[in-house]
Amino acid sequence: MTTDLPLLSNPRSERVRSVRSLGRRAVRERQRKFVVEGPQAVRELLQYAAPAALDLYLTHPAAARHTDIVALAEDLASGGDGGPGPGPGRGDGGLRVRLCTDEVLAAMTDTPHPQGMIAVATPTDVPLAEALAAVSRAGSANADKSGSTGATASHPFVVVLTNVRDPGNAGTVLRAADAFGSAAVLVSDASVDVYNPKVVRSTVGSLFHLPVSVGTPVPELLAACRDAGLRLFAADGSGETSLPDVDLSVPHAWVMGNEAWGLEPEVRDLCDEVVSIPIVRAESLNLAMAATVCLHASASAARS
Amino acid sequence: MTTDLPLLSNPRSERVRSVRSLGRRAVRERQRKFVVEGPQAVRELLQYAAPAALDLYLTHPAAARHTDIVALAEDLASGGDGGPGPGPGRGDGGLRVRLCTDEVLAAMTDTPHPQGMIAVATPTDVPLAEALAAVSRAGSANADKSGSTGATASHPFVVVLTNVRDPGNAGTVLRAADAFGSAAVLVSDASVDVYNPKVVRSTVGSLFHLPVSVGTPVPELLAACRDAGLRLFAADGSGETSLPDVDLSVPHAWVMGNEAWGLEPEVRDLCDEVVSIPIVRAESLNLAMAATVCLHASASAARS
Repeated sequence: MTTDLPLLSNPRSERVRSVRSLGRRAVRERQRKFVVEGPQAVRELLQYAAPAALDLYLTHPAAARHTDIVALAEDLASGGDGGPGPGPGRGDGGLRVRLCTDEVLAAMTDTPHPQGMIAVATPTDVPLAEALAAVSRAGSANADKSGSTGATASHPFVVVLTNVRDPGNAGTVLRAADAFGSAAVLVSDASVDVYNPKVVRSTVGSLFHLPVSVGTPVPELLAACRDAGLRLFAADGSGETSLPDVDLSVPHAWVMGNEAWGLEPEVRDLCDEVVSIPIVRAESLNLAMAATVCLHASASAARS
Repeated sequence: MTTDLPLLSNPRSERVRSVRSLGRRAVRERQRKFVVEGPQAVRELLQYAAPAALDLYLTHPAAARHTDIVALAEDLASGGDGGPGPGPGRGDGGLRVRLCTDEVLAAMTDTPHPQGMIAVATPTDVPLAEALAAVSRAGSANADKSGSTGATASHPFVVVLTNVRDPGNAGTVLRAADAFGSAAVLVSDASVDVYNPKVVRSTVGSLFHLPVSVGTPVPELLAACRDAGLRLFAADGSGETSLPDVDLSVPHAWVMGNEAWGLEPEVRDLCDEVVSIPIVRAESLNLAMAATVCLHASASAARS
């Protein structure tokens, strides 16, 4: 099918400018759209968040190389059974697939190598209550032990990002949350936009694998976690409790702070324990590394 | 003292071009010099690898802000007791300190924000035998338990980087090695240059905290580890042994492969065990995250 499509070849077209403008947060928020770059992230979008996919732009060589993605896209474009129906913001009820030249693709993003493929999608985040419902589901999966495949099964846990500003760190935390079976990721209002192209790129698809909520102020976020029965662990180098001494065999939330200045005292005070990772030298773990260690510990506890 | 120094103000001078050329690996190798950017990394250089420091360039505001670094530098410049004497390549037996304008500093590096300060240094790596001697020292510290402060004390371990090409990943692995008390980091000949500005930047000083050896071919590197009594653990997503099942209470080496394609089969075959980290979804850990988890596990075993 894709070989029949007209080739977009004008890097100065209105469409190209429109996609490129999604690099700016204000435009993303106004249009409720964002860009997903590269075959791996596009594949995960089409597989895990199909209703959100609006447009797929790809080069001929990329289409030839990634026939699995083309097949997925064609199924969605024809309104097939690839997803639960048209998503919000989709006019014609199907994914629009368009071939384009390398120049057009390069003009659409700031990425040096989008690897021949980008998609435009509507936001995939869910309301906070829905994200926290995923915690209850993970918990009840423990009760009957049926259909339990992930580490979330026995002791569900979530990650809370407060004031995280660096896109690479935020993306890596999302990736760790995905790898180690976090039930959800809850992002505060003062944190980096999860639809920032650098965040999307560094999650390598994890953004579409688990419920992510955005935009809630920190106090409300922590109150909602507490109401959902989660114990609140602040991850902070200054913590008096050492990670090996924490009982992770209860439903819990890891509360992560800003990469440079850590957690504010008032946020730490809202948590049940302030937990530090034992290290040989101070200041040697960044946010992404700390989150990786904490979430791995939660996953280990969930398995035991 | 620094206020008496002449101010370097010509961003097109021969000196500026010479420092800037150290951004290229061939020049670094020919001149045996590299650049250290930013106050934190410069401080660690002067504290932990003073004999390697040749030149310090800083702006007036940076000198005013970081008086501790200026004091360290003045001590070294006067040939004081701040280090074990002049290092190789230092003509006059002391660190040369020079004030410069923002424009000069910006012209010396590719970094958007060197934060008012860079240093030029000679390579700080050590011969492989010396790096492995650090393992024996860490091991013998266990025997008498005296003066043992780090996680390396009970069961020494090292990190081996084979074919790691991405500077950010390599820097983060060095940082994790430092944080979790690895006795040394051994970098193969086919890996990224540890003096690449991006590696130096992402180690945030860890490069100067522990013995690092570079340039040995992988088979020799692994043979030397084995001769030093280390058990060889290949870290690889395809590993049949799960991390929690590995006995880390023996001297060991973590062998890490390329960020994209992992470890070559022939390298895996040279190791004692191929170890994977249990995760909920495949392909969701990058090299730096995997190294962080493995080294944290080694540090935990060393403490227990």
